[in-house]
Amino acid sequence: VLSRVPGAKTHLVAKDLTPVASDTVLTIQPTTTFADCPQLDVICVPGGVGTDALLNDEETLAFLRKQAKTARYVTSVCTGSLILGAAGLLKGRRAACHWAWRDMLGLFGAIADPGRVVRDGDIITGGGVTAGIDFALVVAAELAGEAFAQAIQLGIEYAPAPPFDAGRPETAPPAVLAAVQRNMAALLPKRRADAERAAARL
Amino acid sequence: VLSRVPGAKTHLVAKDLTPVASDTVLTIQPTTTFADCPQLDVICVPGGVGTDALLNDEETLAFLRKQAKTARYVTSVCTGSLILGAAGLLKGRRAACHWAWRDMLGLFGAIADPGRVVRDGDIITGGGVTAGIDFALVVAAELAGEAFAQAIQLGIEYAPAPPFDAGRPETAPPAVLAAVQRNMAALLPKRRADAERAAARL
Repeated sequence: VLSRVPGAKTHLVAKDLTPVASDTVLTIQPTTTFADCPQLDVICVPGGVGTDALLNDEETLAFLRKQAKTARYVTSVCTGSLILGAAGLLKGRRAACHWAWRDMLGLFGAIADPGRVVRDGDIITGGGVTAGIDFALVVAAELAGEAFAQAIQLGIEYAPAPPFDAGRPETAPPAVLAAVQRNMAALLPKRRADAERAAARL
Repeated sequence: VLSRVPGAKTHLVAKDLTPVASDTVLTIQPTTTFADCPQLDVICVPGGVGTDALLNDEETLAFLRKQAKTARYVTSVCTGSLILGAAGLLKGRRAACHWAWRDMLGLFGAIADPGRVVRDGDIITGGGVTAGIDFALVVAAELAGEAFAQAIQLGIEYAPAPPFDAGRPETAPPAVLAAVQRNMAALLPKRRADAERAAARL
């Protein structure tokens, strides 16, 4: 969505140009590095399994703090908001996050918000994974106007029709929620320890 | 979504392992080749700007025909259904496609269906771009049962809340629709010529 904003130049920024494995079959190929990246108008920190490793990665956090000083919008999707928090960019600000990890925002002085897209001044954050589409359309409208955002929406035929109503803890069948929470629980101790350590550095 | 199906082994299959540029900043890194790919339980042909080049690519079409003989499900998202059509796999079958290109399915003897996810026997097809999420949850339920599909939906927090209702030609503001149709019109002559040439080969 964001790369379709008229005039946008989109970068995938990482420490170096080594392809980054995701938790699926997809690999992300960075297009520039922290060192070579220009000052950005919009920064967006994505979420995912890589979050834990970045919560205490001073090189990443310093890059975000430097970019945030001049960016028009500081943004994230999913657990990316935890990294913004670890960089000290969410103190006293409302932010969204994936439902399973949202309460950790409080460790960084942020106000966890259950909204799918949450705006607090120049900070715009999206909820879990697929909230990224709704989030990006909101950012596109902010950057280029509603008509352009709507043209992008029509181009990607975004008229969602989920076959089930299980996308939120409040609506998922209880047995499904319990199963997903069991899986998440396996990740919790490490992520919480990493987040607490990051919070202690602020 | 599909890579999260329990026990699934997901491949990104291409002629060779050269990274494939998309029409965004993202690059797709194939994980196997036509020659090395095992017989698949599910084939899914994606859509996008690369469609035109594949409509008359005999190596790709032969690969799809060979896989389709033994696959449990032959599937596509967006303009991928045009490639299934060009491979001769949609004769007399109902199929979905991106709204702007859907009527081209008729060239291949398929029955264009405006549904977001369309099932006709062992053929399951999705509409434009983002229909891929709805489509994949339907396929996941077919492969692993509804509870697993719902767990995937909860994991990716798929409770969409589009900021605008512009995702279909029927709901988009007329000026937005006209602007998108102007952009699509620039692509139309080549794609239609490629599709007609492919249809003549069947």
